[in-house]
Amino acid sequence: MSDLIPISKAACIGGGVIGGGWVARLILTGIDVAVYDPAPDAERIVGEILANATRAYGKLTAVPLPQPGTLTFVGSIAEAVAGAEFIQESVPERLDLKRRVLAEIDATAEEDALIGSSTSGLLPSDLQVGLTYPERLVVAHPYNPVYLLPLVELVAGNATSPQTLERAKLIYGALGMKPVVIAKEIEAFVGDRLLEALWREALWLIKDDICDVETLDDVIRYSFGLRWAQMGLFQTYRIAGGEAGMRHFLAQFGPCLAWPWTKLTDVPDLDDALVDKIAMQSDRQANGRGIRELERIRDDNLVAILHGLKGAENGAGWGAGQSLKVFEDRLWSMAKAASLSAPAADFARPLSLHETTVNAAWLDYNGHMTEFRYLQVFGDASDAFLRLIGIDAETAASGSSFFTAETHIRHLHETKRGTRLRVETQVLSAGGKKLHLFHRLIHAGTGACHATGEHILIHVANGKPADPPPAIAARLGEIAMAQTDLPVPDGAGRFVGQPR
Amino acid sequence: MSDLIPISKAACIGGGVIGGGWVARLILTGIDVAVYDPAPDAERIVGEILANATRAYGKLTAVPLPQPGTLTFVGSIAEAVAGAEFIQESVPERLDLKRRVLAEIDATAEEDALIGSSTSGLLPSDLQVGLTYPERLVVAHPYNPVYLLPLVELVAGNATSPQTLERAKLIYGALGMKPVVIAKEIEAFVGDRLLEALWREALWLIKDDICDVETLDDVIRYSFGLRWAQMGLFQTYRIAGGEAGMRHFLAQFGPCLAWPWTKLTDVPDLDDALVDKIAMQSDRQANGRGIRELERIRDDNLVAILHGLKGAENGAGWGAGQSLKVFEDRLWSMAKAASLSAPAADFARPLSLHETTVNAAWLDYNGHMTEFRYLQVFGDASDAFLRLIGIDAETAASGSSFFTAETHIRHLHETKRGTRLRVETQVLSAGGKKLHLFHRLIHAGTGACHATGEHILIHVANGKPADPPPAIAARLGEIAMAQTDLPVPDGAGRFVGQPR
Repeated sequence: MSDLIPISKAACIGGGVIGGGWVARLILTGIDVAVYDPAPDAERIVGEILANATRAYGKLTAVPLPQPGTLTFVGSIAEAVAGAEFIQESVPERLDLKRRVLAEIDATAEEDALIGSSTSGLLPSDLQVGLTYPERLVVAHPYNPVYLLPLVELVAGNATSPQTLERAKLIYGALGMKPVVIAKEIEAFVGDRLLEALWREALWLIKDDICDVETLDDVIRYSFGLRWAQMGLFQTYRIAGGEAGMRHFLAQFGPCLAWPWTKLTDVPDLDDALVDKIAMQSDRQANGRGIRELERIRDDNLVAILHGLKGAENGAGWGAGQSLKVFEDRLWSMAKAASLSAPAADFARPLSLHETTVNAAWLDYNGHMTEFRYLQVFGDASDAFLRLIGIDAETAASGSSFFTAETHIRHLHETKRGTRLRVETQVLSAGGKKLHLFHRLIHAGTGACHATGEHILIHVANGKPADPPPAIAARLGEIAMAQTDLPVPDGAGRFVGQPR
Repeated sequence: MSDLIPISKAACIGGGVIGGGWVARLILTGIDVAVYDPAPDAERIVGEILANATRAYGKLTAVPLPQPGTLTFVGSIAEAVAGAEFIQESVPERLDLKRRVLAEIDATAEEDALIGSSTSGLLPSDLQVGLTYPERLVVAHPYNPVYLLPLVELVAGNATSPQTLERAKLIYGALGMKPVVIAKEIEAFVGDRLLEALWREALWLIKDDICDVETLDDVIRYSFGLRWAQMGLFQTYRIAGGEAGMRHFLAQFGPCLAWPWTKLTDVPDLDDALVDKIAMQSDRQANGRGIRELERIRDDNLVAILHGLKGAENGAGWGAGQSLKVFEDRLWSMAKAASLSAPAADFARPLSLHETTVNAAWLDYNGHMTEFRYLQVFGDASDAFLRLIGIDAETAASGSSFFTAETHIRHLHETKRGTRLRVETQVLSAGGKKLHLFHRLIHAGTGACHATGEHILIHVANGKPADPPPAIAARLGEIAMAQTDLPVPDGAGRFVGQPR
């Protein structure tokens, strides 16, 4: 899969919240990761972040994830970087410490391994001082949670080579991220500069009792936070300016800059009194929710937002949703490659091609999996079957696809949140443009059949019903033939309301 | 509907982007609005905003919207406010102008009408100077687009009465908004203070060529913009701080405030050179897209994000998604009240109980509505039918509900994004615990039938199949009886694969 994912082994130096987030993103994209962190609880922290990320990715992609990479914890930097094509440094934000760690990475890593630093404020040129191969170091600053937020700010130092920047774009892009190159290095780059400005103003508002932290958070998340999840500051203002244009809009702003609308010419003193006030208000806002629960809620929300943005612009995706779309396309290609290499001997029994878990968003007001989600699971199983015979988004784009013409569903048991489900798929018949599939939805724990789905699919080429291309017809025929002697499953051929 | 929507007539003074947004929100909630704006193009601008908002609301709510309110343009403030229980002032941001307009509103409006000012920066106490009834004036500062973003900052002046603040919370809440009370009045309140701080920092970054406007926007929308659509600054930092807690996290921040991470001790000069630079970069970023197109994309994205957040927390909603949930619940109550008062004569033909529009998130990789969304629409239509006979989330909680046992779907035409769909529902039979429904999915434009759904539903009481309660059985029997003579629809009783 080297053309799909440009690396197969990575090293993460530092396993805190940020380092752990990098580990999770790499592992879930199928890359082996060696971690070095001398902290005694690093393995636990990384494990918890990986668990969070695995849970989130189970909902994030509409695509089967690749086999996860192997995670190992090692006792030294040298062990971690041995054989790694990509190294991410995420140690605490102290120049002396970072320089020491980077020097050790530089001395022991493969000469052409790419090194990214997660620093949120230090200058890359300062980090490059004293390195033997400084040209392969670039600042690659992510945002928490690293496994869900796509942004990585790439900042070159004086010694960073153009090739390093290009390779970094390729690698981080393959991880589903949005690499953004910052033109000049300054302390804190772009994102943290913006955050720092807003943060200082926020501290004044709390200190002066204009509002409490919950109100301030609500002001953000019910207004411009929603705007900024999909368009930034300037595009938003361009729209607000309307037909008169950006130039006219800016002209109106000139005078405002002289108004007393910010206290930013002063720096607030973050003394004990202010820290106490914020900590107490923050406890009240959390309303008894622990960090793990808040993380779960945040991740679910981010997944939902990313899903929403993925569907934008006729399914091409917008902003962070486009990053997800590109990532999924890559995963589809990997899944297809894996399907095509499956051995033929498996075909003589019903096929297990799709598994899923009932998540919270699938429940109706009775607390059970809602009816259309059954068809979603059956549809996903049909898609998995189509991939098996060589049909996917790519062949669809070139004009060859299957469409469902008819469906019959029987609901046999209620299905609760968290249930692991497995679909067994049987080909009832296949010939010409017609494909007759039968799915059984099995509770993976009890083995009970919770629902059945019977479907007629029609092959369509360039908008018209037509026989599938020979290679696909052959693959389909092979499976149908192998399943000829399977018994007709219970419930097949029923009409709605037919007595049992 | 006075207990659901506390006002029936409103006045909007000022019909620009903000005033027009208020008009749209009010009209679409079923409230009559009179508008006064002396600008010659006010009627056109308000009309365009209302068209945008109508389009967005068609996708926003899963609930039938009420009959829209009546919109009238009038020639004076006195005419606009006559009989209005609620008046929103949205004239340009000049103290002298706002005072003159508010004085005229104050002199001509009903004595107890509530007056909200959309000012984004002026102090309410300054606006109250010279009014006869200053106690009913409150700053109610919204965010663009007003019809989609829930936030309204409520700021009381010295003379504002506590009753006014309570009434304002009630009225703005009924419009689907999130009213947030700011504790003390200061210029620009809370949201615009935060925006102004970030804006000044952004201007420096562009002026100093650290990045261009597109890069800056990408930095926002691929990282903290996603976070802030669902949790604000402090809750996010609480999570980032992890197990060590907010106090520990803040302690780390203290030293940073002394770091050179912002240029905010200076104010940038927004001179011609900087205006030119930003305007040119913004043109490039827009990539040929006009304002109307950007608005449409923005609105679709906001709708998708709000949908995502509405599904959070087991469907209870989170943040702005919770506002949408509360708004929908109110609309459901209105729809149910309307259903229950529908005359029996309507039942003698297939029922039109559910309409929807195909949104981007419903498309498959072929660009058509994906198969399980058909069942979602049929399920929503079944739910609408069940509400009609008195079954809803409330009766389900008390142990009486219908569950789908069996479904048959025929796909007759592909369905594209943006298609307005209407479901026609026919009762094939109803008796005892069994209900046999048939839905036809109609393209509202062409009248073509795109799919049919045939369903057996079983009434369940306290977990067991059982006859429905007498009142529900009676209502159901009345409809079934009225439909006895309707012809059996094409496709009913088919099994999968049956020759036509």
